[in-house]
Amino acid sequence: MIDLRSDTVTRPTREMREAMAAAEVGDDVYGEDPSVNELEERAAALAGKEAALFVTSGTQGNQAAVLTHMRQGEEIIMDDRAHVFLYEGGATAAFAGVQSRTLSSEKGQMLLSDLSGAIRSQDVHFPDTGLIWLENTHNKSGGSVLPPDYVKEVGLLAERAGIPLHIDGARIFNASIAAGVPVAELARHASTIQFCLSKGLGAPVGSILAGDRSFIERARKWRKRLGGGLRQAGVLAAPALLALKNGFDFIADDHEHAGILAEAISSMEGLNVMNQVETNMILMDTFETGLTSEDWVAEMKRQGVLAVPFGPFTVRLTTHRDISRTEISQAIERIMKSLQQLKG
Amino acid sequence: MIDLRSDTVTRPTREMREAMAAAEVGDDVYGEDPSVNELEERAAALAGKEAALFVTSGTQGNQAAVLTHMRQGEEIIMDDRAHVFLYEGGATAAFAGVQSRTLSSEKGQMLLSDLSGAIRSQDVHFPDTGLIWLENTHNKSGGSVLPPDYVKEVGLLAERAGIPLHIDGARIFNASIAAGVPVAELARHASTIQFCLSKGLGAPVGSILAGDRSFIERARKWRKRLGGGLRQAGVLAAPALLALKNGFDFIADDHEHAGILAEAISSMEGLNVMNQVETNMILMDTFETGLTSEDWVAEMKRQGVLAVPFGPFTVRLTTHRDISRTEISQAIERIMKSLQQLKG
Amino acid sequence: MIDLRSDTVTRPTREMREAMAAAEVGDDVYGEDPSVNELEERAAALAGKEAALFVTSGTQGNQAAVLTHMRQGEEIIMDDRAHVFLYEGGATAAFAGVQSRTLSSEKGQMLLSDLSGAIRSQDVHFPDTGLIWLENTHNKSGGSVLPPDYVKEVGLLAERAGIPLHIDGARIFNASIAAGVPVAELARHASTIQFCLSKGLGAPVGSILAGDRSFIERARKWRKRLGGGLRQAGVLAAPALLALKNGFDFIADDHEHAGILAEAISSMEGLNVMNQVETNMILMDTFETGLTSEDWVAEMKRQGVLAVPFGPFTVRLTTHRDISRTEISQAIERIMKSLQQLKG
Amino acid sequence: MIDLRSDTVTRPTREMREAMAAAEVGDDVYGEDPSVNELEERAAALAGKEAALFVTSGTQGNQAAVLTHMRQGEEIIMDDRAHVFLYEGGATAAFAGVQSRTLSSEKGQMLLSDLSGAIRSQDVHFPDTGLIWLENTHNKSGGSVLPPDYVKEVGLLAERAGIPLHIDGARIFNASIAAGVPVAELARHASTIQFCLSKGLGAPVGSILAGDRSFIERARKWRKRLGGGLRQAGVLAAPALLALKNGFDFIADDHEHAGILAEAISSMEGLNVMNQVETNMILMDTFETGLTSEDWVAEMKRQGVLAVPFGPFTVRLTTHRDISRTEISQAIERIMKSLQQLKG
Repeated sequence: MIDLRSDTVTRPTREMREAMAAAEVGDDVYGEDPSVNELEERAAALAGKEAALFVTSGTQGNQAAVLTHMRQGEEIIMDDRAHVFLYEGGATAAFAGVQSRTLSSEKGQMLLSDLSGAIRSQDVHFPDTGLIWLENTHNKSGGSVLPPDYVKEVGLLAERAGIPLHIDGARIFNASIAAGVPVAELARHASTIQFCLSKGLGAPVGSILAGDRSFIERARKWRKRLGGGLRQAGVLAAPALLALKNGFDFIADDHEHAGILAEAISSMEGLNVMNQVETNMILMDTFETGLTSEDWVAEMKRQGVLAVPFGPFTVRLTTHRDISRTEISQAIERIMKSLQQLKG
Repeated sequence: MIDLRSDTVTRPTREMREAMAAAEVGDDVYGEDPSVNELEERAAALAGKEAALFVTSGTQGNQAAVLTHMRQGEEIIMDDRAHVFLYEGGATAAFAGVQSRTLSSEKGQMLLSDLSGAIRSQDVHFPDTGLIWLENTHNKSGGSVLPPDYVKEVGLLAERAGIPLHIDGARIFNASIAAGVPVAELARHASTIQFCLSKGLGAPVGSILAGDRSFIERARKWRKRLGGGLRQAGVLAAPALLALKNGFDFIADDHEHAGILAEAISSMEGLNVMNQVETNMILMDTFETGLTSEDWVAEMKRQGVLAVPFGPFTVRLTTHRDISRTEISQAIERIMKSLQQLKG
Repeated sequence: MIDLRSDTVTRPTREMREAMAAAEVGDDVYGEDPSVNELEERAAALAGKEAALFVTSGTQGNQAAVLTHMRQGEEIIMDDRAHVFLYEGGATAAFAGVQSRTLSSEKGQMLLSDLSGAIRSQDVHFPDTGLIWLENTHNKSGGSVLPPDYVKEVGLLAERAGIPLHIDGARIFNASIAAGVPVAELARHASTIQFCLSKGLGAPVGSILAGDRSFIERARKWRKRLGGGLRQAGVLAAPALLALKNGFDFIADDHEHAGILAEAISSMEGLNVMNQVETNMILMDTFETGLTSEDWVAEMKRQGVLAVPFGPFTVRLTTHRDISRTEISQAIERIMKSLQQLKG
Repeated sequence: MIDLRSDTVTRPTREMREAMAAAEVGDDVYGEDPSVNELEERAAALAGKEAALFVTSGTQGNQAAVLTHMRQGEEIIMDDRAHVFLYEGGATAAFAGVQSRTLSSEKGQMLLSDLSGAIRSQDVHFPDTGLIWLENTHNKSGGSVLPPDYVKEVGLLAERAGIPLHIDGARIFNASIAAGVPVAELARHASTIQFCLSKGLGAPVGSILAGDRSFIERARKWRKRLGGGLRQAGVLAAPALLALKNGFDFIADDHEHAGILAEAISSMEGLNVMNQVETNMILMDTFETGLTSEDWVAEMKRQGVLAVPFGPFTVRLTTHRDISRTEISQAIERIMKSLQQLKG
């Protein structure tokens, strides 16, 4: 099986497993786990922020951010296909009691005029705008990278309005590699950023929320309420730390693999690639084949390739650390076979 | 001053004032206010529902509906310019903890395919869809009436999906008059409806939430939590009851007045009417005059006409019970004078 | 029927009804209702606060206070028989997301050492203490008055801890009359106070939330979300205003009546009065009669006296404006008859 | 340093570390992590329930239970020193919007009559009672074990009332060993139970929520919202699994150690043990020494023993897997030295 469902399926390397086994640990609820402390310091530096918090998932980092930035009755502005809106169980409303004002976007980029028009004025009928939200890379449009200048302009707009900006950077490492810009630079104009250690980087579990010191202190209490206050968390921090230490240049390979795969798919009769492949995702359009994404995913599975439906006629394929160049070639063959089976 | 800001500014008639003064009352928290009981029975019959609840505002009726239909972590599907989304302080998220999935619409009518596509399937990442929402007439598009057949189709779609449908019928009386269809017929395909007694009908305070008996019993407890459990509420119910008893044919005049006013505005140099005037609202477009809605509202006020900004270059004018045919003529003259002043 | 269930059953006087009918009104959501504005100014002055907000019930005033003072994840300290904890549907948790830390009390007076011990220190496991709560008079202990010095000491403790103090003064007028101290004096050490116009004062509907100007502005938005933003609210404000204007010395009669009734009950075989009758409530203990409060309430109703069960063997009787001295004598006779029937 | 602050400080054994390094993993959000699946099956069997869910902490298990059992506006009945009330940041109110009705207890045992009296009847003023809560062992009273018959009686009472019973069994293994009764037996009368793998059992991270299948499916979605949906969670499940497989008889040693330590402390001049030491906790009373728990904790730290303040004059000491019999003797000597220093 070639698993292209997501980069979340990456398994810890042997080196990471050894790091886990050898991890120096302590009780992190008391702030005494040296591995966690080192990870948080290094992650803060990487993000160019004062402080960082280790959380168990991107969702937990995002929710802790919303709970810390906002209070109930406020409104977040975000694009209408943001992960936090579509795939986090409606938790921003359920827990933080905030409303999501969703705007249409081009690959995660809302028009600045729309953004600015969506900020609420003072009126007894209106929720106050409490947060602006960007996602980089933008999952739903196929891993698109937000142009650094766009992020800067949104950041300046937010600053002028006195509203914090949060970046859901679940795949910020892909953005960094693709744009050739350090993570800290991509996060500079945001108050806070969340990024995942368990996707492209390959750590088994964990994400980071970074921001200024007082924000992170308050977020720590929200993490506790969410049940993310762990004990010997060092066993998770140690492999994640390794990922940060060793650098993440290998992500460039994932992007190259995605490009090869996309080109091959484009050339197949009846299949199209919907997105401009900027990072590690391919949105394969099956419409011309007359078959739904569900049909395709089922047949590809029979042929030994795993992918996910991402719309009625859209299949998402994601390259990652555990997929070699050879497997990409095999995947191409198997997708061709699927096409023959389905159209045969 | 000719006050065209909203039909909420209508003042109680002399008859209503007398009704208040003479109202038979009791303690409604004990269910003992005869005027309230009579109003609730009559309102239920009008809506074609088993039971009804007197609430102090449209917002309270809408919020009680959401709190009763849903539980936190669920999602409502509604159009992206719904009153409950734009003008109720984000209360659905703040109180009920639910997320609003907003779809674009044509005059409040979402495409059935969009609606059906927005209903969530079972997946650990998704909130469950807990409610579908329509607004009739649709305020933000200028008092548009939802075609009865459209409401029916949405109702059938909701029923098939096992999801309740709520109608925000703050101005359902305008819809009923304009469509020539009884309120009960407009509400038939919805689980619940809210309508206001204080807008076109002219009662000083109050709205109704109607639905089946067990729903209304549970809504009664939410009303108490919202602080809407009143004592001698009969003093408010009595004038509202009068409005229901006497019928609301006079609303046809408001619509006629709006038509006359709209036609006159359309003929003025530089001014346009953006909406098809179906009920009692006119959306006046000031863009060609080069002046914002704020400028226009200020100048019209100097000339003796009150209206509200409804967008950067949109002014909303609303006709209502307290505006006579003569005042419409005067309003037209004053708007012309405003135009002369502003363009002079 | 002599209705001693609550002082909420008082009906508007003829004068109040006339005031309603003649009320000058406007749209209060626009801040244009002159009767409401006058009422709010006068109520603020009475409470000795900068500003006041007209709300439709004590519950709405209390909830708006909690929502404005606090944010989710915080804790209120209050006595364990507070009305807001027992009788407001758990709304402080449901809407504001705050936890109630309830302490035992003597007639609503928590020990200062308990209060101070319950304030949370900084720790990742703890909610922050966001509000201290007193209720004056204290309903559940039978209308007890909090000694002004006690309120002062709690106020100073709260101030030292940097935590606001709210007084649920649903029956503050009874406390004021019984203690011989102006309302403003009783509220001086609190940040905010809520009091009801519809109980002892006899207005048909309405309560007041008073505090400083910026607090009340924010509370106004929460009132809107709760559905308490009314239109021509003057029809409710006018009778309430009358109650404030005319003074409330007549409440002294209610207290005298309660004393007479309590003395009579105490002298009846098998019946006891559990509370020291300081204001207008009597807690009648039926235990020695071997009959439950439910039995007693049923029999008394047959004899023409209405009261409410307030515990398995406790019946609460409340005197109020609509009960004359003569009716008190009749009530005494009827309770004796009930005793004869029940013990027969 | 001899660390007696909590059994949460236990570090993974060499065997556990090896299990982590060798863990078979998969993406648990897709339900594909074999180690997690095995752990959940085994934990369900141990608890005598249909299904189980791996969560990252006791707090997360408790909160997921509340969110799944209840809806906002309901009430939980629990003892007033429950961990979930005192030490989970007020999360039950913040996230689930539920009110905690806290009753006094004797070592975590509320009177059945109090419990039954606290269940709310149907009334528009009342929240509905949605959950009954027990904690076993009871942390705040020093690790007391709830008698199995008591739990049974509460379970029957809950069942008759149609209200689910949840057990916070963070230390259920200590209860099981001390009572000589299997965990499944202790959980039999509860709908759901949460227990920790990271305390006495020594796993680095993780807890279990167990209940019937449909409950656990719904809890899984709440876990996702809380950010507890992990990816290669097998690296945490593997060591936890080991703890379950190998049995937990060694906990008996912790109890024996606690008994020895308690006896020694009791015999020291000025020090008392407040609790009957049933499991692994000692509540040391410092009052007679005239020194606060803060003073004592500081001095003991200087002498090489870590403990936590648990009240103004109460210090809690907890024995656990990483503390040997020899260290207990050393701890006794050091506490005596502390006494000499402090009283010297």
